[in-house]
Amino acid sequence: MTPIVSIIMGSTSDLPVMEKAAKFFDEMHIPFEINALSAHRTPDAVEKFAKEAKGRGIKVIIAGAGMAAALPGVIAASTTLPVIGVPVKGSTLEGIDAVYSMLQMPPGIPVATVAINGALNAAILAVQMLSLSDEALAEKFADYKNSLRGKIEKANEELKSVKFEYKCN
Amino acid sequence: MTPIVSIIMGSTSDLPVMEKAAKFFDEMHIPFEINALSAHRTPDAVEKFAKEAKGRGIKVIIAGAGMAAALPGVIAASTTLPVIGVPVKGSTLEGIDAVYSMLQMPPGIPVATVAINGALNAAILAVQMLSLSDEALAEKFADYKNSLRGKIEKANEELKSVKFEYKCN
Amino acid sequence: MTPIVSIIMGSTSDLPVMEKAAKFFDEMHIPFEINALSAHRTPDAVEKFAKEAKGRGIKVIIAGAGMAAALPGVIAASTTLPVIGVPVKGSTLEGIDAVYSMLQMPPGIPVATVAINGALNAAILAVQMLSLSDEALAEKFADYKNSLRGKIEKANEELKSVKFEYKCN
Amino acid sequence: MTPIVSIIMGSTSDLPVMEKAAKFFDEMHIPFEINALSAHRTPDAVEKFAKEAKGRGIKVIIAGAGMAAALPGVIAASTTLPVIGVPVKGSTLEGIDAVYSMLQMPPGIPVATVAINGALNAAILAVQMLSLSDEALAEKFADYKNSLRGKIEKANEELKSVKFEYKCN
Amino acid sequence: MTPIVSIIMGSTSDLPVMEKAAKFFDEMHIPFEINALSAHRTPDAVEKFAKEAKGRGIKVIIAGAGMAAALPGVIAASTTLPVIGVPVKGSTLEGIDAVYSMLQMPPGIPVATVAINGALNAAILAVQMLSLSDEALAEKFADYKNSLRGKIEKANEELKSVKFEYKCN
Amino acid sequence: MTPIVSIIMGSTSDLPVMEKAAKFFDEMHIPFEINALSAHRTPDAVEKFAKEAKGRGIKVIIAGAGMAAALPGVIAASTTLPVIGVPVKGSTLEGIDAVYSMLQMPPGIPVATVAINGALNAAILAVQMLSLSDEALAEKFADYKNSLRGKIEKANEELKSVKFEYKCN
Amino acid sequence: MTPIVSIIMGSTSDLPVMEKAAKFFDEMHIPFEINALSAHRTPDAVEKFAKEAKGRGIKVIIAGAGMAAALPGVIAASTTLPVIGVPVKGSTLEGIDAVYSMLQMPPGIPVATVAINGALNAAILAVQMLSLSDEALAEKFADYKNSLRGKIEKANEELKSVKFEYKCN
Amino acid sequence: MTPIVSIIMGSTSDLPVMEKAAKFFDEMHIPFEINALSAHRTPDAVEKFAKEAKGRGIKVIIAGAGMAAALPGVIAASTTLPVIGVPVKGSTLEGIDAVYSMLQMPPGIPVATVAINGALNAAILAVQMLSLSDEALAEKFADYKNSLRGKIEKANEELKSVKFEYKCN
Repeated sequence: MTPIVSIIMGSTSDLPVMEKAAKFFDEMHIPFEINALSAHRTPDAVEKFAKEAKGRGIKVIIAGAGMAAALPGVIAASTTLPVIGVPVKGSTLEGIDAVYSMLQMPPGIPVATVAINGALNAAILAVQMLSLSDEALAEKFADYKNSLRGKIEKANEELKSVKFEYKCN
Repeated sequence: MTPIVSIIMGSTSDLPVMEKAAKFFDEMHIPFEINALSAHRTPDAVEKFAKEAKGRGIKVIIAGAGMAAALPGVIAASTTLPVIGVPVKGSTLEGIDAVYSMLQMPPGIPVATVAINGALNAAILAVQMLSLSDEALAEKFADYKNSLRGKIEKANEELKSVKFEYKCN
Repeated sequence: MTPIVSIIMGSTSDLPVMEKAAKFFDEMHIPFEINALSAHRTPDAVEKFAKEAKGRGIKVIIAGAGMAAALPGVIAASTTLPVIGVPVKGSTLEGIDAVYSMLQMPPGIPVATVAINGALNAAILAVQMLSLSDEALAEKFADYKNSLRGKIEKANEELKSVKFEYKCN
Repeated sequence: MTPIVSIIMGSTSDLPVMEKAAKFFDEMHIPFEINALSAHRTPDAVEKFAKEAKGRGIKVIIAGAGMAAALPGVIAASTTLPVIGVPVKGSTLEGIDAVYSMLQMPPGIPVATVAINGALNAAILAVQMLSLSDEALAEKFADYKNSLRGKIEKANEELKSVKFEYKCN
Repeated sequence: MTPIVSIIMGSTSDLPVMEKAAKFFDEMHIPFEINALSAHRTPDAVEKFAKEAKGRGIKVIIAGAGMAAALPGVIAASTTLPVIGVPVKGSTLEGIDAVYSMLQMPPGIPVATVAINGALNAAILAVQMLSLSDEALAEKFADYKNSLRGKIEKANEELKSVKFEYKCN
Repeated sequence: MTPIVSIIMGSTSDLPVMEKAAKFFDEMHIPFEINALSAHRTPDAVEKFAKEAKGRGIKVIIAGAGMAAALPGVIAASTTLPVIGVPVKGSTLEGIDAVYSMLQMPPGIPVATVAINGALNAAILAVQMLSLSDEALAEKFADYKNSLRGKIEKANEELKSVKFEYKCN
Repeated sequence: MTPIVSIIMGSTSDLPVMEKAAKFFDEMHIPFEINALSAHRTPDAVEKFAKEAKGRGIKVIIAGAGMAAALPGVIAASTTLPVIGVPVKGSTLEGIDAVYSMLQMPPGIPVATVAINGALNAAILAVQMLSLSDEALAEKFADYKNSLRGKIEKANEELKSVKFEYKCN
Repeated sequence: MTPIVSIIMGSTSDLPVMEKAAKFFDEMHIPFEINALSAHRTPDAVEKFAKEAKGRGIKVIIAGAGMAAALPGVIAASTTLPVIGVPVKGSTLEGIDAVYSMLQMPPGIPVATVAINGALNAAILAVQMLSLSDEALAEKFADYKNSLRGKIEKANEELKSVKFEYKCN
């Protein structure tokens, strides 16, 4: 099985955040790979990865990193594939350092940035991109999206059991 | 009993914050309803809610949400009722993301925003609005407001028991 | 004609912002008053105003102020009427100082805060409150709200005239 | 010609920012449409747009908005297509309000956010998504990307003409 | 013994922060009083306090508060005495809301603001003010200030015991 | 005439801000001096100034600076006199860099910080401190403070001339 | 003449900021080079530059960039030379995006960050590094540093000419 | 053994952060000293230290401090040696107060600022400076830098053991 999406994280300490993307690809039956590469500590490996990804069959790249999170931007610089960035919250600054480091890309080289620690949404975004040319996946994703409504509706049921004298229903 | 205020939250995980509003309505003997609806996950239900609220007898809507907290603004877009927004503090950014998402509404569609996690104040604001045409409620609320002073005065008594050699009284 | 809403600003330099509220009340045929009072420079006048407002027939108060914008909170402390706060952008800090000074009110004393410089929305919010017991006003406001849609639709027409070779229509 | 990408802006005042996306689609010979729709002022039109976009052949949506920028999130809520958000800088807060309002989407409904006023990058991102199943476009985009290098190289030439006594080359 | 400094806090929950001021006055043998008064919940008591403080012999006022911390500014509005503000860190926003609410006072009514939770420094500042006309206190304070140096010097001694192979001394 | 207050600024480019303090001392007939000294460019001069100020008869020091505004803190480190800090807005960051650099002093060495560019309030604070032992000055200052009310009252008169059909008075 | 310091900027639009560094090297008679290279638009050129810089005789690298300013970090990743980063203020966010993108480097790969637009200080820092093994340069720099004091002293003279009735000296 | 680098911290409570620098110097076999000195509590000792450091053979100074972190700037003011600043995260404001207090130095007196709590990077930066004239150290440091890559590669191996059904490799 050849992977079509690649999850990269700047450090294995980002795994608890990034594995939400992996789980979603598993749920959607999408072959993926997951690796740790650092724009600052293994720049050659990052560049090699970025330049070869398309040729290996990768279609979308998700890159998560914290602090001065150059990883998604550096990958985007060396590939024409869409790159999704996940800002990871570190031990200071609430993750806003990572947001600015990947959101504020200069004209010409975008990074599709999602919420702080939002690896699940990064994976969903990748599925939305892949669905543009894969109708079966599009349908599977539409089902998933409908299921979100069900969760809220069920949660709403639980709210009914909360008792207040003046609460109606 | 028909509810006249409606409490909406974007997720049931917001209940520990939003139940302070419910408790205050209970204390004031105001019939209310409480539901979870998501601007992003159940948009149709939110729109239906917003469009029908006035017709069902709702007079004020309180909407609490975190992160990109579109909920109160989206409700305000589809009703002429006053909408009060409660920014809920999430796991990053100290709640400032939710503040900006509901405070900075464009001209034409206001959301009355209160403090981060300030659901009690949202409920008080609703009571102040309802009191404009309900003199009995206005008096009950005036009593409540006076009671706040008493709490401070009592707390002040406790301060007297804190001992320092050079403390006077 | 007795005013039913009162617009207060911390300084007459706030008039260019606050007059948007005045204009909207004029458009809605709502009798109003407009004054400059400062929580810090004329505290007695503010307190007298807050304590007497309800007795004079005022139903909603809009208070705009910049910097350490204590004005709406201090008024709210001495009245049971709903108080709407307009944070005014000053010469530094982009208005965020005024936002925090009125948004982050302690439990018990809410200020309904709107966007920075959002005096129009403050006035709309006041009309929404007054409409709860004034069906004629409610209808007039519903008309206004519908008219907002028209403006966007007309603006959209203008977009059609922007020429690009690959633009469709 | 049927449009395959749709540019939406919350207000025609966002046109100076958003037209950079239109120009790029023109340059890439991609049929597109451009409209003003407001999540807060024309919610029904937004919902209708979002629900019908895929059926009309739209593949990617770009939504630009300022302040409490709910537009891209609300569209994303009612479509399975990928939605790219452009935070537009308003008159206060340097655009950070718009960033938080679209970046911090809840799990399940992503918005691919780009830099403040980054409409060109939004269009590039859309082209990268479309290129996943359009090899001719992929090549055209690769040429564009290479041309960016040329611009820097040419700019570098100009730097050579800046004279300093101790400057080398 | 008549108090010459008055410590006010917006809520008794601020006591763990504000008692550092009390302890320093005790250490300096300065008669003081300590009370809880709220600008928003007990406005009349605050005003009465501010107007009578000078007449009762108070010379400096320290006011600590969190969130929309109007307390020191409101006191300053009604007295000619110097008022020192202590921004207290609350459960959100790291105390920056309280900083802006007391630091950004309008021209004419200053509040001498110290660090977040900096009640000790507020008390020291009060002692510096009192020392302007009390030479004995000035000397006692100079001794205190010298003792700070001793603490650092002693801490430095401890650093000597931390072992590293290449550490010199 | 021996100066009793000293105004220091980190750079003469701060003069447009700091001269408001000078003008107020002039108005109050308080002998003062005004100098430019830099904690970073003339550290010896700053230290000499700080150590000798009290001996020369100075009672209060006002120090204004921008960016990494160490000046008031460094002066406070070498004197027992009260030091008032004025954060000056520079070309970036809206003055918040200067605020943090003087507000967040460590325990033991306070700086009485006022609003960004708030040199007038710094001077008023100095007068309040001097008034503690100078009853004539205290009375002069009380007059000044009363005059602030007059300005607002006069401004209010002007508001009466603003015409709206539904404006009352 | 072989350059020993290299100034890199992400875009020639940064030249008005970065030329302050060039001018200082000129003043200090230090051979330097100045180029525009982009971590995102010319990644191969940046990598080649970083890997070859030391071999060509470069000793210190200064890299200025705005927005998601990956440039200094990416260079630092591929060289053992010290890299100094200059955050350049862009059209939004006051330069804080660039600060976080270069300041918050992960453990192992530092960037010596200076003030927003602080290219002169970057050059001074480079000279301080070079002076560690060049006593003649060290003396020249010591002279420069002394001259800063002179500027302040001269500026101080000008302050003497500002007239106020109660100003002393 | 004479120390060639000096680590200074504003308080011994900063030791858990600053000892990472000490450990790195130990690992690199660089003789160093470590002391606690406070710009605000022991200003004379700081000045003496700064003025004498170069004469004692010190080549690089690392200064860590929190809050209004004047320490590195004040040292830089009185020495021509390069000074590296480590902003230490305190109990409020996530360390951003310390960042601004040392990053935003005025023209003429730079502080090479690293990440919040980034003492290891400060030490690496010092080694890079020392390596400019010490080829043996340069080689030792190049080895260290290569070893960082190994850590990532090993971490990557561990990622291979994380099981997902659709994960490739």
